Amino acid sequence: MSSSPPSSPSSSPTPSSSPAPSASASASARITALDVLDVRFPTSEELDGSDAMNPEPDYSAAYVVLRTDAADGQEGHALAFTTGRGNDVQAAAVAALAPHVLGLSVDTVLGDLGTFSRTLVHDPQLRWLGPEKGAMHMAVGAVVNAAWDLAAKRADRPLWRLLAEMTPEELVAQVDFRWLRDALTPDEALEILRRAEPGRRQRTARLLEHGYPAYTTTPGWLGYSDEKLTRLAREAVAAGFTQIKLKVGASLADDVRRLRTAREAVGPDIRIAVDANQRWDVAPAVAWMRALAPYDPYWIEEPTSPDDILGHAVIRKELAPIKVATGEHVANRVVFKQLLQAAAVDVVQIDAARVGGVNENIAILLLAAKFGVPVCPHAGGVGLCEMVQHLSMFDYVAVSATTEDRVIEYVDHLHEHFVDPVRIHDGRYLAPVSPGLGAQMHARSLADHTYPTGPVWAARR
Amino acid sequence: MSSSPPSSPSSSPTPSSSPAPSASASASARITALDVLDVRFPTSEELDGSDAMNPEPDYSAAYVVLRTDAADGQEGHALAFTTGRGNDVQAAAVAALAPHVLGLSVDTVLGDLGTFSRTLVHDPQLRWLGPEKGAMHMAVGAVVNAAWDLAAKRADRPLWRLLAEMTPEELVAQVDFRWLRDALTPDEALEILRRAEPGRRQRTARLLEHGYPAYTTTPGWLGYSDEKLTRLAREAVAAGFTQIKLKVGASLADDVRRLRTAREAVGPDIRIAVDANQRWDVAPAVAWMRALAPYDPYWIEEPTSPDDILGHAVIRKELAPIKVATGEHVANRVVFKQLLQAAAVDVVQIDAARVGGVNENIAILLLAAKFGVPVCPHAGGVGLCEMVQHLSMFDYVAVSATTEDRVIEYVDHLHEHFVDPVRIHDGRYLAPVSPGLGAQMHARSLADHTYPTGPVWAARR
Repeated sequence: MSSSPPSSPSSSPTPSSSPAPSASASASARITALDVLDVRFPTSEELDGSDAMNPEPDYSAAYVVLRTDAADGQEGHALAFTTGRGNDVQAAAVAALAPHVLGLSVDTVLGDLGTFSRTLVHDPQLRWLGPEKGAMHMAVGAVVNAAWDLAAKRADRPLWRLLAEMTPEELVAQVDFRWLRDALTPDEALEILRRAEPGRRQRTARLLEHGYPAYTTTPGWLGYSDEKLTRLAREAVAAGFTQIKLKVGASLADDVRRLRTAREAVGPDIRIAVDANQRWDVAPAVAWMRALAPYDPYWIEEPTSPDDILGHAVIRKELAPIKVATGEHVANRVVFKQLLQAAAVDVVQIDAARVGGVNENIAILLLAAKFGVPVCPHAGGVGLCEMVQHLSMFDYVAVSATTEDRVIEYVDHLHEHFVDPVRIHDGRYLAPVSPGLGAQMHARSLADHTYPTGPVWAARR
Repeated sequence: MSSSPPSSPSSSPTPSSSPAPSASASASARITALDVLDVRFPTSEELDGSDAMNPEPDYSAAYVVLRTDAADGQEGHALAFTTGRGNDVQAAAVAALAPHVLGLSVDTVLGDLGTFSRTLVHDPQLRWLGPEKGAMHMAVGAVVNAAWDLAAKRADRPLWRLLAEMTPEELVAQVDFRWLRDALTPDEALEILRRAEPGRRQRTARLLEHGYPAYTTTPGWLGYSDEKLTRLAREAVAAGFTQIKLKVGASLADDVRRLRTAREAVGPDIRIAVDANQRWDVAPAVAWMRALAPYDPYWIEEPTSPDDILGHAVIRKELAPIKVATGEHVANRVVFKQLLQAAAVDVVQIDAARVGGVNENIAILLLAAKFGVPVCPHAGGVGLCEMVQHLSMFDYVAVSATTEDRVIEYVDHLHEHFVDPVRIHDGRYLAPVSPGLGAQMHARSLADHTYPTGPVWAARR
């Protein structure tokens, strides 16, 4: 039997033209390798990245390289992000996908990435480990993203641009509408994309000139002193950011003092978001945030379990006009669908490496557009900024057609390891111009940080 | 910092007496090994187990053995169930927990399994792979269940009896109330358990005499001919079952014919449940079931995504009085909580190997009791019947105190591999009397089915 669900009409129609129109010379090229590396950074030695639920993360990546025997020698690079322990499990989940990928025709895969991603997501045996959640789904996302990186490189486009140049019909064909149709039909998705078609060229030009708004979490890690918080908050404003974010949730007294400190440092006009990293039950979330309300928090992020749609709806109702944001741990489009149906969030925080890759994130962007909710991606970690900026920029050009109330998270960690690191100027992400998804790391960084044998880790044993 | 969330009051109080009161001689005993085996059965060669989303499962187990240096030589056995591919990923997830377990004092672990389970669930790095879902959470469940098996063996009790003899306070201490308190507080849980205390002795005696009601899925796999369906359905009724189940969702015309065939075979008084294994979106679920309604289906199981709480609520409202059931793929107690809050299910289908083990299933049983919804466990696969019967029997003795409208699924696959296989008589599970959780397999079965090196698989290469 087919591993692709036959009831899903979204597996057709085939896009009328390939997103990777290159290389008739490589018509017989095959995928020859799916390599995965366990790469970890000893970030727990600093308190950068500390929050109420992640006291000591070692930012890590199950790093994926898709190789082919095409003459162009191009590779697809992507990663699944983890916070240290368990990165080996994540790598094993990626490796389990190799039999589904090796030997496939490069043109077939890249010519219909919608079918490729659905085939991985719906493997009838592997899906038992989810379905569509946890390590196995993140592995699918990494492999799908590696294929998109390869497609973008072969098309000589940064990913955002490859996506933004696809037709509405081609984009709709990327989406798995299974379990979405009560909230978003293929026809509605097409309508959203067609409505945004007219201004694509102007918005692309604007993006290339001005970039996309960012906010910064750099000042607000839990482990920082008030002095460091004040200094970094002022530096953020001076650097052009109009929004910063503070981690909260460990101690209410500390949080009141820290938010007051930050508010005094930045003045009334800068937005300050706060982030509890899932720390609370519903009632404590409401009570805690009411205590912080005098200092005008802009949004409360991850107030409770990422699975608790109904809990978020209650919190949002109780706390308005403080906004409610979540998404970095939301497992898939079905949970995002319900957060929107239940009016449970004001801000959708997509993550480049949590769900089933670019294809599922296109679905989530379309859902957010349907419900009129802004998307402000989660980023940070390692490589998340590099990857997710492409999705917001695509959203601006071809889906929501606006940057109003939209910002991409920025954290200034670990960018030096990337071949094409993000470029921030005056509080904005500059649009990437190099081909691909942006996740490719320097060979030296990969070798140094391979766990546990690389020199960075060998020196610590 | 502690890996156990400090805001959770449920980590205290410590139970007043240990659930494993044995062995002062072993006071210094330690956990010395956490072994994991990749064991697979080539069930896809038959069409037993075929359904609309699992056309060709190879029932498999990431099989866990917890060993100690105690003089009693007892081991804890449990398993995470998968359907073939990915069982290696599941085994890697179990192995990732070894550093959290090796060297721990046996008495400390078994004396407070609530804290033990919360420590595994909330590891601040491993939880990134969920949180509390997918392969990593199932691995936690398997290790927690292996510890319960060891506790029950050391207490010389079948697990259901060990649990049913714990005080309400001890049972409440097993539960992680994080994210539950808007639906169930520790005090409410205590009240539910205290209300059921008076009749424990009589219900235990009744269980030992009469067993617990079962239903059978044996007749209804999608791959069976109508003749085989008719024969097996009649055999099920003759064997004392009052409920059978049919898989549906591949073809409406076939399903109408099969359900009519089954109804004709068993008559009007036998309940026939149907199971779509997540196949539908919301509207098709309603339409398909309306076409089956003339044949009086008792419940529709997994009509759509296990994550779609709001979708289940709509389907239930539209289809009443046909009941809606789900749970075998519900990732954790937070999703079960919402299914109950949203009045989205009539039947809660716990699974012994999906969530974080016995502790989280106690939480789910308490939630179901709070909302007055019957629990009818999912079973089948390999070892799921052997394990989950203990949870229903505990529920009967000490939580819900009733078997009304409650049945445990029974499938007659692979029981011969278990040291203490389930015993079915007159359509009922007989209460287990051997110590432990029931998941222990014969050494020969493990060796034969080890993947890919065991003789069963070596012969197929």
